[in-house]
Amino acid sequence: MRSNGRNSDQLRPVTLTANVNKYAEGSVFIQVGDTKVMCTATVEERVPPFMKGQGKGWVTAEYSMLPRATHSRNQRESARGKLTGRTMEIQRLIGRALRSVVDLPALGERTITLDCDVIQADGGTRTTSITGAFVAMAMAMNKLSQQNKLSTFPITDFLASVSVGVVNGTPVLDLNYDEDSKAKVDMNVVMTGAGKFVELQGTGEDSPFDREELNQLISLGELGIQEMISHQKEILGPIADKITQRSAGVKA
Amino acid sequence: MRSNGRNSDQLRPVTLTANVNKYAEGSVFIQVGDTKVMCTATVEERVPPFMKGQGKGWVTAEYSMLPRATHSRNQRESARGKLTGRTMEIQRLIGRALRSVVDLPALGERTITLDCDVIQADGGTRTTSITGAFVAMAMAMNKLSQQNKLSTFPITDFLASVSVGVVNGTPVLDLNYDEDSKAKVDMNVVMTGAGKFVELQGTGEDSPFDREELNQLISLGELGIQEMISHQKEILGPIADKITQRSAGVKA
Amino acid sequence: MRSNGRNSDQLRPVTLTANVNKYAEGSVFIQVGDTKVMCTATVEERVPPFMKGQGKGWVTAEYSMLPRATHSRNQRESARGKLTGRTMEIQRLIGRALRSVVDLPALGERTITLDCDVIQADGGTRTTSITGAFVAMAMAMNKLSQQNKLSTFPITDFLASVSVGVVNGTPVLDLNYDEDSKAKVDMNVVMTGAGKFVELQGTGEDSPFDREELNQLISLGELGIQEMISHQKEILGPIADKITQRSAGVKA
Amino acid sequence: MRSNGRNSDQLRPVTLTANVNKYAEGSVFIQVGDTKVMCTATVEERVPPFMKGQGKGWVTAEYSMLPRATHSRNQRESARGKLTGRTMEIQRLIGRALRSVVDLPALGERTITLDCDVIQADGGTRTTSITGAFVAMAMAMNKLSQQNKLSTFPITDFLASVSVGVVNGTPVLDLNYDEDSKAKVDMNVVMTGAGKFVELQGTGEDSPFDREELNQLISLGELGIQEMISHQKEILGPIADKITQRSAGVKA
Amino acid sequence: MRSNGRNSDQLRPVTLTANVNKYAEGSVFIQVGDTKVMCTATVEERVPPFMKGQGKGWVTAEYSMLPRATHSRNQRESARGKLTGRTMEIQRLIGRALRSVVDLPALGERTITLDCDVIQADGGTRTTSITGAFVAMAMAMNKLSQQNKLSTFPITDFLASVSVGVVNGTPVLDLNYDEDSKAKVDMNVVMTGAGKFVELQGTGEDSPFDREELNQLISLGELGIQEMISHQKEILGPIADKITQRSAGVKA
Amino acid sequence: MRSNGRNSDQLRPVTLTANVNKYAEGSVFIQVGDTKVMCTATVEERVPPFMKGQGKGWVTAEYSMLPRATHSRNQRESARGKLTGRTMEIQRLIGRALRSVVDLPALGERTITLDCDVIQADGGTRTTSITGAFVAMAMAMNKLSQQNKLSTFPITDFLASVSVGVVNGTPVLDLNYDEDSKAKVDMNVVMTGAGKFVELQGTGEDSPFDREELNQLISLGELGIQEMISHQKEILGPIADKITQRSAGVKA
Repeated sequence: MRSNGRNSDQLRPVTLTANVNKYAEGSVFIQVGDTKVMCTATVEERVPPFMKGQGKGWVTAEYSMLPRATHSRNQRESARGKLTGRTMEIQRLIGRALRSVVDLPALGERTITLDCDVIQADGGTRTTSITGAFVAMAMAMNKLSQQNKLSTFPITDFLASVSVGVVNGTPVLDLNYDEDSKAKVDMNVVMTGAGKFVELQGTGEDSPFDREELNQLISLGELGIQEMISHQKEILGPIADKITQRSAGVKA
Repeated sequence: MRSNGRNSDQLRPVTLTANVNKYAEGSVFIQVGDTKVMCTATVEERVPPFMKGQGKGWVTAEYSMLPRATHSRNQRESARGKLTGRTMEIQRLIGRALRSVVDLPALGERTITLDCDVIQADGGTRTTSITGAFVAMAMAMNKLSQQNKLSTFPITDFLASVSVGVVNGTPVLDLNYDEDSKAKVDMNVVMTGAGKFVELQGTGEDSPFDREELNQLISLGELGIQEMISHQKEILGPIADKITQRSAGVKA
Repeated sequence: MRSNGRNSDQLRPVTLTANVNKYAEGSVFIQVGDTKVMCTATVEERVPPFMKGQGKGWVTAEYSMLPRATHSRNQRESARGKLTGRTMEIQRLIGRALRSVVDLPALGERTITLDCDVIQADGGTRTTSITGAFVAMAMAMNKLSQQNKLSTFPITDFLASVSVGVVNGTPVLDLNYDEDSKAKVDMNVVMTGAGKFVELQGTGEDSPFDREELNQLISLGELGIQEMISHQKEILGPIADKITQRSAGVKA
Repeated sequence: MRSNGRNSDQLRPVTLTANVNKYAEGSVFIQVGDTKVMCTATVEERVPPFMKGQGKGWVTAEYSMLPRATHSRNQRESARGKLTGRTMEIQRLIGRALRSVVDLPALGERTITLDCDVIQADGGTRTTSITGAFVAMAMAMNKLSQQNKLSTFPITDFLASVSVGVVNGTPVLDLNYDEDSKAKVDMNVVMTGAGKFVELQGTGEDSPFDREELNQLISLGELGIQEMISHQKEILGPIADKITQRSAGVKA
Repeated sequence: MRSNGRNSDQLRPVTLTANVNKYAEGSVFIQVGDTKVMCTATVEERVPPFMKGQGKGWVTAEYSMLPRATHSRNQRESARGKLTGRTMEIQRLIGRALRSVVDLPALGERTITLDCDVIQADGGTRTTSITGAFVAMAMAMNKLSQQNKLSTFPITDFLASVSVGVVNGTPVLDLNYDEDSKAKVDMNVVMTGAGKFVELQGTGEDSPFDREELNQLISLGELGIQEMISHQKEILGPIADKITQRSAGVKA
Repeated sequence: MRSNGRNSDQLRPVTLTANVNKYAEGSVFIQVGDTKVMCTATVEERVPPFMKGQGKGWVTAEYSMLPRATHSRNQRESARGKLTGRTMEIQRLIGRALRSVVDLPALGERTITLDCDVIQADGGTRTTSITGAFVAMAMAMNKLSQQNKLSTFPITDFLASVSVGVVNGTPVLDLNYDEDSKAKVDMNVVMTGAGKFVELQGTGEDSPFDREELNQLISLGELGIQEMISHQKEILGPIADKITQRSAGVKA
């Protein structure tokens, strides 16, 4: 039994609130336990220089934490004058993960930027960001679709992420901060609706892990991600159907 | 009659929600119309180098906007690698304003940092930040007081801020973004509960103003600030009484 | 009676020396007491990106202090790698103030950059910079006019600035460094030749001020600014007439 | 059959040259095919601020590529003024991986910095850096040991890394640049001599992968890493014995 | 015959004005033709970290040009966020040159910083800066001496600098901007009162030079420097005697 | 007799290894004693903005040291976020020196970038870089020539560099680190095959030097440079003949 009385394969309460920003093309406020992330999607009718003239779109992400999202206050990266390695790593991960389910030519020469701002952090901020950003991105794609700017819906499958880890010798799903800080193994899993891996990042700095543990962690991850995706489907409603159809078409 | 049907001397709806952050020593989420700012107060048991050894505390502020707080997305200052002049100007203003009502020796060698993060911007983000940050600061002071770390309550008076301006030839209170962008004169007023000015910043880049207009704007500012202070008193409850007592003591 | 025997409404000696730089399109060396600022105006036949294609010109300012302009040496901002908030605030103020009396369409797609470099500082460097930069700008405009590049003279009125403040309980005009460092209230006033306010920035961090004090300070500011403008007229000679004519035309 | 005629489970030729730097406490030049990395270990008798006073050592890494290590010249990060996200990610990975096999208390309050400078890049630079840096670190530890500065040899196990991926539908070991640029799945594996995972980072941005593929890739990784470790043992000679003994002791 | 009618071995008019800054421990405004440099010396009772605890002082220099010191406006290095290579090279040269005639142990654990700010540039700004900075430094040393803080006067000899070059095939002394921009060979010479070389930096990027030309250039440099030193002696008056005595003592 | 038993006019052993990089258009690994520098030449079919449209090419250089090229580890300039003054000075010197023997119009609108990365430093890294970079540049020019992209071979003469200095009162050639750190005078000489000076940079910070010493140092420099050039000719083989022919043609 874990702190908060959760089972090892149990997620914290998940809440997704849509349209929380009056300007963004897509926005969602995601809460997973006490981790709270504001995700907005911005559509711009241009692509970065390295993508120009290819007839394809681009999806990118930025991640940040408010200074007091954590137990003690963190210096702002704007005041430091540069991003930390941790931030760069996370925002590269979010962007890469989202692009894996986007048909970039179908998006056209546009950029969708997902801003994931952590309002409060209690473990799993990067996985929560991916899960929330997917929803904001889908809403933005839907808006483009409603404006008749897209001939094909560009999202090819659902995508969500959870963290798993070995805490007190037991593989568990969705670690909060307390669990994370004493975990021997820490793994982030990103999967599609079809159950395929997009990212798998496991670290055993404090204690290497064997294949048996790896298999258990991955199974927990699959479980948690399917539950996350059902939350996404609920909030997305009819937009979810577009993804399901596109997903089926790809597989057909 | 203004957009949204407001009178020239009417504030937008004001909502203050307390304790919105589980880690900060004080926190409030302030909404003034569609302008939304998360204000947290962090207490640290040290002062900046230039204040060391003086037996006094320090109060400082940082201000930032989420990238999509506005109509079009702004580049993050962390990605730019430096703060804009506008941000620096605003956070210097917030800190200076708050310090005007703090008895720094009574605070002791501690720093209170107010983080004002604009979640959504619709005009008046700097004045809204000051009004909200005052509440977060008062909550943090109260926490220190409850921990018996203070012999005197260090807040000497209430403090709030509003914007005023001349729109379509008429002086109005609390401009939203649309009004602000067509205002000929733009002024930010910061006042204490005792009705004294702490900051007065008026700009007529597009159209200089005369003393008559100045006087009208200031009167509107006084009105709006007193209303803001009554909102502060309501959310602060018993903490407001401590401020009122200290304030009376100072005047006695 | 103040230090140096000045009355409360008396400026320090003001000296303006024109054409002190052999390359700049306009240049003036302004001394107000021991405050000395080199002001140069540079004309460039282009506008910044955000102004392109609007058929309008731009006026901007940069402000800096030599490291030993002050009692103790300040680190260069070039060595720090970034501008301080104070510098940004001041140069934004100078640019905004100057633009308020420039007819940007009449200037055409050109940029005038005013460099205000403080050679020695003894209080009032920002107000002295504005007063001096106006003269340098007028000289540069005159040069453009003589080259037949302008169909209308683009300066619509005179503009100058002074500081006022409450020192030892008395409102005084044009504070030097010693007075400034013990002033309870500090205010910078920028006005036009027509006596209208362009900027009004009052701060009572150490002691809030009431409307009575505000009114006294503003009256002192008006007085000082009219005297500054008479110095500007003297040094500008025939160029002053062009401004006066343009100013009259605007009012007609 | 792969380019260069390699089998899918075959490494490129591996060469390790020791003591290539006359100043460093440990140094090795590692070549894996045409990928060439200079690895040096520097011992300093201090730890970073966040580690002070804990009686433990620290191991960290920095990674860089010479500008012309690649097909076209890359701008130096020193000229850009900041590290790329890729570099930060890689050097965090190398440091974390090495620390997993170091008994930091046994190292004492010292820092070992591993510099991995890629002289020529042909795929797998991060995995090659880890494999080479381990050898340089072991040599530096041995030097400390010979100076009688350590009571226990601090390296608890061997550690090496390889890349694996899916190229043309086939899982293969140790991708060169050409293979890497067309791989659908790309994975970096870091393992200990005992065959446990320290890091597992798989990405399927272009094509998600299933558990079957994951298992095949991991098996290839295990194979390649054991071969890399045998190269490490050969070059380390008697130092390898110290690691083996320490490793056995831990398991005993 | 050169532009301005100068002979090949003739300096431009040289003017040194002392005590031009009310705060600095030493200050001089040096004009060599139309090149004008403000030189201030600041004394601080500390040394940089790398000099601590050695019982020796330090002398360093910073160099900058006002944006409109030149024909067209240069971007400020503070706005660029970093120093140019040219600036770094020049300020390293100035500091190194001045230190060559300072007895650092006699100075004690103090730093003298020479700020050389070019108000107007017309060739030879670095050599003019050295010549002027020497005077400001001597004045600051004298002030320390008068405050009885020094047991031995720390300046061991005079020091000045001039530029020489090959223009239109003729070696000439003290190039102005026009000459400098068409010079085939450009050389800066720094010498002591005793006629020894401290720095010799010759560049023939456009046209290499032979030993014959080198000898002619050096002879011109010796001539010009002795004349510069006589200007220094005149402005320094009794302080010059202290240097002469110290210089003689060293040689005795 | 010097450390290592060298005579005062004797170079350390010099080794040049060509084609050490599989991607660069020219590459050489140069060893002068224990100083080792990797030099690569990169050809790009564009010129920097300030050279555009002039029908001329550009040659530039970058210089860096691996962190552990020296006795103690140096912080990377990429981690510091900016280049040191020393690095800027050196890379400006290398570029300027190389350009002096390149016919830029004959190169056409191309840039050749010479990267000089010091793998191990034992004195003379800047002079060794120049000598090595010349060879890499010649190889890149030859490649362009073989691709029929050049109508005239653009290298007009050989170019090499050595350091000389006064150590223990004796002028010596090619100082290693130990000698350099105790040298009273330090001079870098860059000369052409025709025996003309391109750069001469002598510094006597610790002890000024007279004309007699200068002459001796220059003679040693000439000697060393001619020997360096014979090493260049040997490694360049037939490419050396092209330079010799071009050089003769220029003189004819």
